[in-house]
Amino acid sequence: MTPLKSLSIALLLLSVLGCQHTTQTQEIAIPSSATHNTYSPLINASQQSDLAYDIVKSLTVEVGPRIAGSKGDKRAVAWAEAKFAELGFDHIYKEPVRVRNWERGFADAKVIAPYPQNLVITALGGSIATPATGLTADVVMFESIEALRMANRNDIAGKIVFLNTRMQRDKAGRFYGKVVPNRVRGAVEAAKQGARAVIIRSVGTDNSRFAHTGVMRYDETVEKIPAGAISTADADTLEVMIKNAPTVTLQVNMQAKDAGWQTSYNVIGELTGTESPEEVVLISAHLDSWDEGTGALDDGAGVGIVMAAAKHIKDIIGQPKRTIRVVLFAAEEIGLIGAYEYVRANKDSLNKIIVAAESDFGAGPIYRMDTRFATSVRDNANDLYDVLSSLGVALGDNTTNGGPDVSMMPKYGVPVLALKQDGTYYFDYHHTPNDTLDKINIDEIRQNQTVWSVVTAYMANTEFDPRPAPSVE
Amino acid sequence: MTPLKSLSIALLLLSVLGCQHTTQTQEIAIPSSATHNTYSPLINASQQSDLAYDIVKSLTVEVGPRIAGSKGDKRAVAWAEAKFAELGFDHIYKEPVRVRNWERGFADAKVIAPYPQNLVITALGGSIATPATGLTADVVMFESIEALRMANRNDIAGKIVFLNTRMQRDKAGRFYGKVVPNRVRGAVEAAKQGARAVIIRSVGTDNSRFAHTGVMRYDETVEKIPAGAISTADADTLEVMIKNAPTVTLQVNMQAKDAGWQTSYNVIGELTGTESPEEVVLISAHLDSWDEGTGALDDGAGVGIVMAAAKHIKDIIGQPKRTIRVVLFAAEEIGLIGAYEYVRANKDSLNKIIVAAESDFGAGPIYRMDTRFATSVRDNANDLYDVLSSLGVALGDNTTNGGPDVSMMPKYGVPVLALKQDGTYYFDYHHTPNDTLDKINIDEIRQNQTVWSVVTAYMANTEFDPRPAPSVE
Repeated sequence: MTPLKSLSIALLLLSVLGCQHTTQTQEIAIPSSATHNTYSPLINASQQSDLAYDIVKSLTVEVGPRIAGSKGDKRAVAWAEAKFAELGFDHIYKEPVRVRNWERGFADAKVIAPYPQNLVITALGGSIATPATGLTADVVMFESIEALRMANRNDIAGKIVFLNTRMQRDKAGRFYGKVVPNRVRGAVEAAKQGARAVIIRSVGTDNSRFAHTGVMRYDETVEKIPAGAISTADADTLEVMIKNAPTVTLQVNMQAKDAGWQTSYNVIGELTGTESPEEVVLISAHLDSWDEGTGALDDGAGVGIVMAAAKHIKDIIGQPKRTIRVVLFAAEEIGLIGAYEYVRANKDSLNKIIVAAESDFGAGPIYRMDTRFATSVRDNANDLYDVLSSLGVALGDNTTNGGPDVSMMPKYGVPVLALKQDGTYYFDYHHTPNDTLDKINIDEIRQNQTVWSVVTAYMANTEFDPRPAPSVE
Repeated sequence: MTPLKSLSIALLLLSVLGCQHTTQTQEIAIPSSATHNTYSPLINASQQSDLAYDIVKSLTVEVGPRIAGSKGDKRAVAWAEAKFAELGFDHIYKEPVRVRNWERGFADAKVIAPYPQNLVITALGGSIATPATGLTADVVMFESIEALRMANRNDIAGKIVFLNTRMQRDKAGRFYGKVVPNRVRGAVEAAKQGARAVIIRSVGTDNSRFAHTGVMRYDETVEKIPAGAISTADADTLEVMIKNAPTVTLQVNMQAKDAGWQTSYNVIGELTGTESPEEVVLISAHLDSWDEGTGALDDGAGVGIVMAAAKHIKDIIGQPKRTIRVVLFAAEEIGLIGAYEYVRANKDSLNKIIVAAESDFGAGPIYRMDTRFATSVRDNANDLYDVLSSLGVALGDNTTNGGPDVSMMPKYGVPVLALKQDGTYYFDYHHTPNDTLDKINIDEIRQNQTVWSVVTAYMANTEFDPRPAPSVE
């Protein structure tokens, strides 16, 4: 246990004065507060438990890939209901979410000239197919989507656009937002310039031959063209070719298809509150994943962490005073579809949510808690912040949106919090076939479930009430 | 430059006595010998040169995959001849090698029950195909090939054998030899027990979803069955399934095929000796690669290192006294085919080889030189060992075989040496699609080309003659 940086001086003095060996300050026992004592058994149990890890293992082995609307997604829904029951949640239900299913199909890319080589490619989620025999054209490279927008249409029309923007590792993943427009908007911007297809350097921080998929968008006013991502290693190769040769010709064949409307579900498990059951602490993750990996980091880890946190509270502290609602959202990857449906379907009871939060950034250790709490009462939870500090978690700012699937809630007044994870390596694996269980460090996911259990228990068992969320500029 | 550990005490004393500030020992200039002076310009130039890296870049971008006998292999042969010419080698030729070409084709594996999931699989080099519609059977797991051999045939007959042996990282790659029999002998041992196919946990030290290919063998007296490797991450998944469920059913479909006899070539570039042209210093790498990566580490790095070493000698020191012969061997991966043919075709002149060596373990830094030199003269090269020590390279034992493609030469009396590279991460990428240029660290490959240039220059320009190689028990 590290020193409690934020502990009030009054408490510290009290403790020091009560100690018989005041000259040996380095040997003074770490002062404890009532809040610490309350959560010590929960912390001790969580820090040694394999539960979050075992839940991810179960989901990745027994279900595996689960893109929204697929057979895997349907199995995941059944798995989630069964897992909630196995863990002893007392109220388990699901809410339907209509989703558009998309199937990846075959994908292949090759340089035809001057240096015949295969490239590792994957279709971007939602892309249309190429013609059945593929599409062959010269390639034109841009270092950014801005450069593509500013370029001369005559240099692009009829060609395949290659968007080759590098992404750096960062603890908070701050470069994702800068590069991801290549993936989401690349097809539209390339089509506006007359391109026949767009391929992007994978939005990822690895150097490997895994291509990173992820959702892309069309604009109904612009012609739809196929969109794919090549691995960073293949992007390096293609870049050298383009710099060395006057013309590089590519053949791309991707047979992705829209597979129609399907029903998926937000799956929900509750521990009903004993004193204020109508007041809800909502902790969440998303159940769907992309289709090439087993979705261990994205977002099996989150599923394991929030299910395990609630289970540990029930086992160590007992049934909570307020209701703990664990929501496993549907169809996050294709546009937060389940989350928007949740807000729509539960509009009238959003004001009963004391706080909402999502775990959706892998399994790296949590180092900070950001909040969106009513400003006037934020300091009332200082005893929580002290306990978190002892777990290596600093208090951050009060402007968070709480994570993708709860990000639309603050505007309805729902307070949110975000337990920020170290995501330095998250984008090495994000949306690739390589997002598998072996990427999760058991000690790190234990730290996650411990922090989530403490925060959730505090929110469910105290009278702290951060409603309503303040608006943020 | 690090202190010269092996420098003779006489030289050291001479230097110290000649110094005016003997009390400030830490400021004494590093003593230099005639040998050091000879190689300093070569070392300085090599340590700053991009040449080895640029050669690997050229080979991986302009040729890419080059499995023996394939179109890529033919392009690689043409590339090598052109590259030797571009670098100014004065005698460039090739020697034909008949090779059996094998084509990987489509490969797919999926768990049918109880948990439907796709597995990443690759066919092992030389494997026959499954039936066109695949092969479906229950799977039986063994932790080692020994356990398979000892098992009851009734538990195996009609099933798919899964050999699930883990491999650890090691600087010298010592665990490869322990695990690789799964790949080479797995099909024969499984077939002897009545299995319909064998799949192995990839012989690799990564945790990822790249499957590692590599050569496998049949025994003409045992039925041939298809053989593939699944990635380590998929092996983990399958292992959990097998431990959790009474029966796990797999479907495997691999459409590999023998593509008949082709002619490949050992490609050779020489710098003809000015004083003893008939005496040959043979440095080598192999030109072929597996077909899924671009063969950057295996063995593009070796190709770049030995070509660059010779070129630097020519440029910095000048034409060598003995002939420097750079041999790029054909078809190493499928069984040292080019090397055996070289020895067969050049049997009568093997006794002219002063020393032979191969670079074929990636691009990690060299930390040791092992030799197979005539014992009586080994110490005559102490001045070389001193220079190597200053480059971080210790003198090792006198029992090496010099590397795969020269390993058959010592029995003909040809001295060999091995410049041992740090291969800690080599088997993370070995024989996978992920063996690409980005895995090479430019500073490390510079250290390699520097060490090779010094050793090669010494062997070519001094009268040191370690012939004949001693026999080793």
